[in-house]
Amino acid sequence: MRIPKHIGIIPDGNRRWALGKGMEKEAGYDNGISPGMVLYHLCRKLGINEMTFYGFTVDNTKRPSIQREAFSKACVKAVEELSKEDAELLVLGKTTSAMFPEELKPYTNRHQFGNGGMKINFLVNYSWEWDLGLQDGAIGPKLKTADVSRIDLVIRWGGRRRLSGFLPVQSVYSDMYVIDDYWPDFTPQHVYDAIEWYSKQDVTLGG
Amino acid sequence: MRIPKHIGIIPDGNRRWALGKGMEKEAGYDNGISPGMVLYHLCRKLGINEMTFYGFTVDNTKRPSIQREAFSKACVKAVEELSKEDAELLVLGKTTSAMFPEELKPYTNRHQFGNGGMKINFLVNYSWEWDLGLQDGAIGPKLKTADVSRIDLVIRWGGRRRLSGFLPVQSVYSDMYVIDDYWPDFTPQHVYDAIEWYSKQDVTLGG
Repeated sequence: MRIPKHIGIIPDGNRRWALGKGMEKEAGYDNGISPGMVLYHLCRKLGINEMTFYGFTVDNTKRPSIQREAFSKACVKAVEELSKEDAELLVLGKTTSAMFPEELKPYTNRHQFGNGGMKINFLVNYSWEWDLGLQDGAIGPKLKTADVSRIDLVIRWGGRRRLSGFLPVQSVYSDMYVIDDYWPDFTPQHVYDAIEWYSKQDVTLGG
Repeated sequence: MRIPKHIGIIPDGNRRWALGKGMEKEAGYDNGISPGMVLYHLCRKLGINEMTFYGFTVDNTKRPSIQREAFSKACVKAVEELSKEDAELLVLGKTTSAMFPEELKPYTNRHQFGNGGMKINFLVNYSWEWDLGLQDGAIGPKLKTADVSRIDLVIRWGGRRRLSGFLPVQSVYSDMYVIDDYWPDFTPQHVYDAIEWYSKQDVTLGG
């Protein structure tokens, strides 16, 4: 089976999951950490070289502060968990903003943890406008995410069929696989299905 | 029903359609012109303000010359057909290349034809790298497609679930609807289904 080198993860549906369980919306995020760790171990086993997690965006921070605090805290916890594993970890996002968690600043340069071996990019307070260097209608001169490679496969949980501002340049040729289940209901079978589907797609890179 | 303001059209599957009919691959393109005209009239009727057609890309021009000539000719015909209708027409792409059809150069500034009323953007010899002004690893300072607005809904024929380099910036928040049928097998029902699906999606623009 053809295995993607780099997968992008859009872990959507945390709030809808919580509502469905009769919980407050913000309770969903804490239930998204453990799926991420299971996914990390699964991807290592499958031999995937690089993963990018869509943590939260600048747009997301406009939500009610109780939600903002919950998803921010969940991202901090997730990055700290990942730093206990074998990984080359990099957190990317707009650090010059109060919305960027102080605890994650040490991770904004890529460091090897444990025996390294898998690149993990974690987008935190990310924005595609920031990424492109967009200012007063001008772009450039360099992608802020230049260290993130082309993404082969984007897997999105929660049923929406869109990128929602996720790494527009690295995703230009990505195949997109959408899972209707919400992210906290993650199961390894989701990933097996996504990769089996991906392995049947032709790769033309626009050709 | 909520109608998208701007739809992107990825009319894929022309070659696979031709093969399925026992024809040579390049014969598919000529059968893609009439679907485009039916689609144009349908979108006018539905009150859609702007449409962007993915004609061909710089990557596509690396295909065998018999195919290249066929899709280039089909794009010229399509633009000429559209110029007989009511439309504000603009052809966008890398004109500084022998691959850009001479006949389309007059269309690279937006002109009103007939009574205007609908913006039509036609991508010809387009490339996302060109669009972003990518050169020697630097981007900017301005999108070459700055005159093309944000796309609400991308409809892709031919089953592939990806953007294939289509307008990465305008598509950051687009909902994506994929039709398994090949583009020459276009029917209006495809569009009705896409718009009905779109009208049920929440629009958050990343929020």
